[in-house]
Amino acid sequence: MKNLSNLMTYRSDVKVVDATLRDGGLVNDFFFTDDFVKTLYQTNQKAGVDYMEFGYKASKEMFDESKFGKWKFCKDDDIRAIVGEKSSDVKVAVMADVGRCDYKNDIVNRSDSPIDLIRVATYLNTIPAAVDMIEDAKNKGYEVSCNIMAISNGQESDLRVALDILGQSPVDIFYIVDSFGSLYPEQIARIADVYLEFAEKYGKKVGIHAHNNQQLAFANTIEAVGDGVDYLDATYAAMGRGAGNCAMELLLGFLRNPKYNVYPVIKFIENYMRKLQDEGVVWGYDLQYLMTGLLNQHPRTAIEFTKNKRTDYSEFYKEIVEQD
Amino acid sequence: MKNLSNLMTYRSDVKVVDATLRDGGLVNDFFFTDDFVKTLYQTNQKAGVDYMEFGYKASKEMFDESKFGKWKFCKDDDIRAIVGEKSSDVKVAVMADVGRCDYKNDIVNRSDSPIDLIRVATYLNTIPAAVDMIEDAKNKGYEVSCNIMAISNGQESDLRVALDILGQSPVDIFYIVDSFGSLYPEQIARIADVYLEFAEKYGKKVGIHAHNNQQLAFANTIEAVGDGVDYLDATYAAMGRGAGNCAMELLLGFLRNPKYNVYPVIKFIENYMRKLQDEGVVWGYDLQYLMTGLLNQHPRTAIEFTKNKRTDYSEFYKEIVEQD
Repeated sequence: MKNLSNLMTYRSDVKVVDATLRDGGLVNDFFFTDDFVKTLYQTNQKAGVDYMEFGYKASKEMFDESKFGKWKFCKDDDIRAIVGEKSSDVKVAVMADVGRCDYKNDIVNRSDSPIDLIRVATYLNTIPAAVDMIEDAKNKGYEVSCNIMAISNGQESDLRVALDILGQSPVDIFYIVDSFGSLYPEQIARIADVYLEFAEKYGKKVGIHAHNNQQLAFANTIEAVGDGVDYLDATYAAMGRGAGNCAMELLLGFLRNPKYNVYPVIKFIENYMRKLQDEGVVWGYDLQYLMTGLLNQHPRTAIEFTKNKRTDYSEFYKEIVEQD
Repeated sequence: MKNLSNLMTYRSDVKVVDATLRDGGLVNDFFFTDDFVKTLYQTNQKAGVDYMEFGYKASKEMFDESKFGKWKFCKDDDIRAIVGEKSSDVKVAVMADVGRCDYKNDIVNRSDSPIDLIRVATYLNTIPAAVDMIEDAKNKGYEVSCNIMAISNGQESDLRVALDILGQSPVDIFYIVDSFGSLYPEQIARIADVYLEFAEKYGKKVGIHAHNNQQLAFANTIEAVGDGVDYLDATYAAMGRGAGNCAMELLLGFLRNPKYNVYPVIKFIENYMRKLQDEGVVWGYDLQYLMTGLLNQHPRTAIEFTKNKRTDYSEFYKEIVEQD
């Protein structure tokens, strides 16, 4: 059982990362209006959110710029148009996927960029490529995290090797990522334990990015913070791929640091997130996502089911059990 | 951290209680069709659910029978029309509220009734009345639980006195009830600890009934089962008052006992629960319930907000903070 004192007080090391534009962008191909993004930035400022992730630094060679909103590419000038002179305390983050980012060209020196944190996303089998990206970003002066995706499908022995390699790299933060929303809080406690072992050995921080397939994104995030994880991803109204993420409004309500304030978040959801939903953008917990989470599968079949407006859940269950 | 072996195996003492008609009935005034109830009973049988709660034994003096569906009153004949000769393994439960049930007249001997379990619902300040109901039901031959509501608003010292009194009564099961959906898993662990201390002392079992205001109904339920709580309430598609309850489809997916089967649950949701929702019956997690949960308030203001189809969440937040 966790110490009661830990529940009443707070660790000032805890940082909240708003991933609405990035994970939410996977749902609407990053087509957010400038008004949405500007107001979100101001809201994060008022709410005490520590980082705002604007989207991906995706390769313009690989992805057609006409088919996506600008936040799939996160050009420095587009970010600058939102944050201006960056007088606020909200730091700017972007995600860079291994194999899908021309990082040598598209990421310039931090001194010339509005970006503060580069989040390198990798699978367990592409750790060396991730290390190259980490070193590049670190040499350019950025804070750097490494988000190891789909760990619920990996072996603990492989994870330990990966964390040992990353520990020796200049990365600042290791991220636990429950890509399939398949992990239970008790498993998160065990995984956090492994991450924290290597984090302590190498002087790194640990973060968590959860998905809500089993309505556990928030529960897993607060389990992790109780275990010593410091960087917490959340999104407004839980917007994110498939079942979505840990809801910002739940997380800020839970955290005890008086710098966090849930009221502006509620206001933003009322004025902006509901509108997105009314316009037909769909995300969030539903039976099909529960099923892929339960079976520890990638949500792509459930996303397809949603897109096709199917409601034959029991038929879908039979289909994905077959694939297992 | 819980033992890994506890996660891979299961305790055969764990029992799942379907509370769909009872807590769900609070949303539609208990107007379920006979087809719905019969199919739900058959589905529980296929899914391996241990108990099905049919509704309340509400006083016909206090409540107008013409204004509610029959499951607010749960006459034995109405239950018999569903369960027939009761050849199935699904036990029948009803809830009896302190102060709202003519238990001396309306609850007959178990040998003459299709009911197996009487669930006595009480607040901390009506424990003596609850004990009278418990003794009455026990004398008539029933299994009996005592569901102590709204404990998040009570003092631990009062709770200890209540459990000590109940321990000396013939009740079989003490229930943890998070009426306001305000408790976090770490608090559930502490509360379960207190309940289990008295349960062990007096040879009782412990159960949990959670609400989903902070999307923690499932997380709190699996926290409790990991702590040694045996009786787990759940409802199909989480149907229940306000933000609803722990979803049956999540719970059965989690439990490791091979007697439980999630597929029939999915089928029932597809065929029956979606129809209720399409007909306009509203329940489930939403911002207004998060807010009352966060503030540890009764959800009545949020239910009113929902009923009035209001969407001015930030205004509502200001209103209920004022009431705090």
